[in-house]
Amino acid sequence: MRVFTGITDLYTPFTRVERAALAVREGRVAWVGPAAQLPEPYRAWPHEDLGGRGVVPGLVDSHTHLIWAGSRLEEYALRARGASYAEILEAGGGIHHTTRATQAASEDELFALAQARARTFLRTGVTTLEVKSGYGLEVTHELKMLRVARRLAEAGPQRVVPTLLAHVIPAGWDRAAYLEVFTTELIPEVAREGLAEAVDVFVDRGAYTLAEAERIWEAALAHGLKVKAHAEQLTRTGAARRVAELGGLSADHLEAATPEDWAALAAHGTVATLLPGATLLLKQPFPDARSIWDAGVTLAVATDHNPGSSPFYNLWLALQLTIALGGLALEEALQAGTANAAQALGHPELGRLEPGSAADFVVVEAPAALEPLYRWGETPIRAVYVGGRRVWG
Amino acid sequence: MRVFTGITDLYTPFTRVERAALAVREGRVAWVGPAAQLPEPYRAWPHEDLGGRGVVPGLVDSHTHLIWAGSRLEEYALRARGASYAEILEAGGGIHHTTRATQAASEDELFALAQARARTFLRTGVTTLEVKSGYGLEVTHELKMLRVARRLAEAGPQRVVPTLLAHVIPAGWDRAAYLEVFTTELIPEVAREGLAEAVDVFVDRGAYTLAEAERIWEAALAHGLKVKAHAEQLTRTGAARRVAELGGLSADHLEAATPEDWAALAAHGTVATLLPGATLLLKQPFPDARSIWDAGVTLAVATDHNPGSSPFYNLWLALQLTIALGGLALEEALQAGTANAAQALGHPELGRLEPGSAADFVVVEAPAALEPLYRWGETPIRAVYVGGRRVWG
Ligand SMILES: [Zn+2]
Ligand SMILES: [Zn+2]
Repeated sequence: MRVFTGITDLYTPFTRVERAALAVREGRVAWVGPAAQLPEPYRAWPHEDLGGRGVVPGLVDSHTHLIWAGSRLEEYALRARGASYAEILEAGGGIHHTTRATQAASEDELFALAQARARTFLRTGVTTLEVKSGYGLEVTHELKMLRVARRLAEAGPQRVVPTLLAHVIPAGWDRAAYLEVFTTELIPEVAREGLAEAVDVFVDRGAYTLAEAERIWEAALAHGLKVKAHAEQLTRTGAARRVAELGGLSADHLEAATPEDWAALAAHGTVATLLPGATLLLKQPFPDARSIWDAGVTLAVATDHNPGSSPFYNLWLALQLTIALGGLALEEALQAGTANAAQALGHPELGRLEPGSAADFVVVEAPAALEPLYRWGETPIRAVYVGGRRVWG
Repeated sequence: MRVFTGITDLYTPFTRVERAALAVREGRVAWVGPAAQLPEPYRAWPHEDLGGRGVVPGLVDSHTHLIWAGSRLEEYALRARGASYAEILEAGGGIHHTTRATQAASEDELFALAQARARTFLRTGVTTLEVKSGYGLEVTHELKMLRVARRLAEAGPQRVVPTLLAHVIPAGWDRAAYLEVFTTELIPEVAREGLAEAVDVFVDRGAYTLAEAERIWEAALAHGLKVKAHAEQLTRTGAARRVAELGGLSADHLEAATPEDWAALAAHGTVATLLPGATLLLKQPFPDARSIWDAGVTLAVATDHNPGSSPFYNLWLALQLTIALGGLALEEALQAGTANAAQALGHPELGRLEPGSAADFVVVEAPAALEPLYRWGETPIRAVYVGGRRVWG
């Protein structure tokens, strides 16, 4: 047990506390509030002075494809020169490139690559990372990716929430045959081994149809897994509305979503997750975050870290873009990258600093807790704590 | 004298050299090319192995307002919530806030603040920073800012190019009286003390008219100083065309510029400088970098680092935004942040790695030299050299 003092400015993130104190016991928040009101019992606990700095909850990146091998810098350069994604796919690039390299890589190689990326996220204050499979495609390689995610979780210091992703139908497979294997072999095995908490389906042109996604979600729910969707990204398929009706955790992307879709998400308590990196790099219209928020939807923002459409290594930058291009206020953006993102993972105990929640927090290298949202291209972080333990800085 | 080897990938930036070597003598590039073709005389020089990494010229940030005091995070938050800049000005915020704080700060205080910011830029590979005055307004405070810039240059390790900026007419002054003081007292004194290389005028609604700018540019030219402009940002004033006709170094911002303006810049060899931070934060249309480049204009990109409209601390991010939103290729963006930016400062010996140019270069923490343009929100830099001397990493 320990009381953190010397906090000039703290966001829970729902409320702001100036000159705050934060009491932690057994990895959880015991008390948070103005230091002057620290209750008697906590005053005798050991104190740690954070030196007059701001504190925010540990960031939650609720949508990443962190595990991948190969390099797509060449493709990124080609696309900047105007090559279309279709041309790149035809030349054997795009997702095929990552799939081949990820299938060819050993579990140890993938672990080393992903761990280095996770460290980069840690330095910017991300204490929880969702990590998807989806580049393995074949059953053994999907399981390999999820075992890498488990090793990341065990190695720490970050919390890792693994998701099984139905990404695309692999080359050489009959659609129905693959769907059969995915729903009757892969999902049951993942559930049996406890390798994922949720199943995500990429519903779009070139990926899964809504009817196919429904079969996958049904199998997932039948095996006690939660469901989510890559929805309404390139085309509007109805996936956001359908996953909401099924009680899904989140619908992600949403560039092509309509106010009716937002209403369905709001009605069912499904989180809308925006992914500004992919929006920018695929040159899509930026979602109207302001209106989605005002429609009563719980809105999260994530990096969508992946080597193709979103080589983003910093959640703060995704939040800043949502402020500048989507109209969110700073306090809303912070919520979108902490508590709301945790809700998108079905982990309401994360991403907030309230009695009982996990003591994951970030000490900002400035007196103002929101300073990292102000500085573009530099993330001023002094230290990062997970479960009350200093893990970086 | 020294030969750098172990370079997998180097950009001059005009050409790419794979498996390169770079010979440096007395702070300048003596030879650059494929390591296998290193001429005999250089083979006997001491070697330094860069370990299989990419190398690019030191970045040149050709438009910054690096020297300022005070904090405008509060205003940034208010604007994200929808407050207009006019409302903020009325409440005593905006540039007035920075002007008051900068006038009140001592030379030592300003130096410490600016030096910390320069260090942040150094870590991302910026080896030359242009630094403008413009928050002092009163003669003594403008001179104070330029003395801070001189101290930055003397302290190093970065090169600093100082610019006198005619920003706005200060409160309490008659326009004509201030213009008289600016042109007959400030400019001559700056020229006499050698405190700036160029004079920049902010020509726009709320700042200077084109006619006023012409008087300032004439005085500058008469005193042997170069000229440039904040041009066509909020409104089209004709400043870009006029400063080009005067042989100006650069016209910066250009959100409201037309193809006729681009043609004038191309015809006179005046650099067009885009400032993506201000474009995004002021919610303006992103300039069509692709068409400007294709019109034969020399195009540069800079951070416009300033506490109000562009709290950007990373030039790579400005380059990435110009790729994603302006249609530049990666190689073009690198040129825009190195050689072209150096041209915008009248320093063609900087921002390039060619025989005779300054040996300012960046060792990238990856085998591919363009990797920092690929990773969003994380800048993988291993080391930074100025004049052949390792100054960071
Ligand atoms: Zn995704
Ligand atoms: Zn400026």
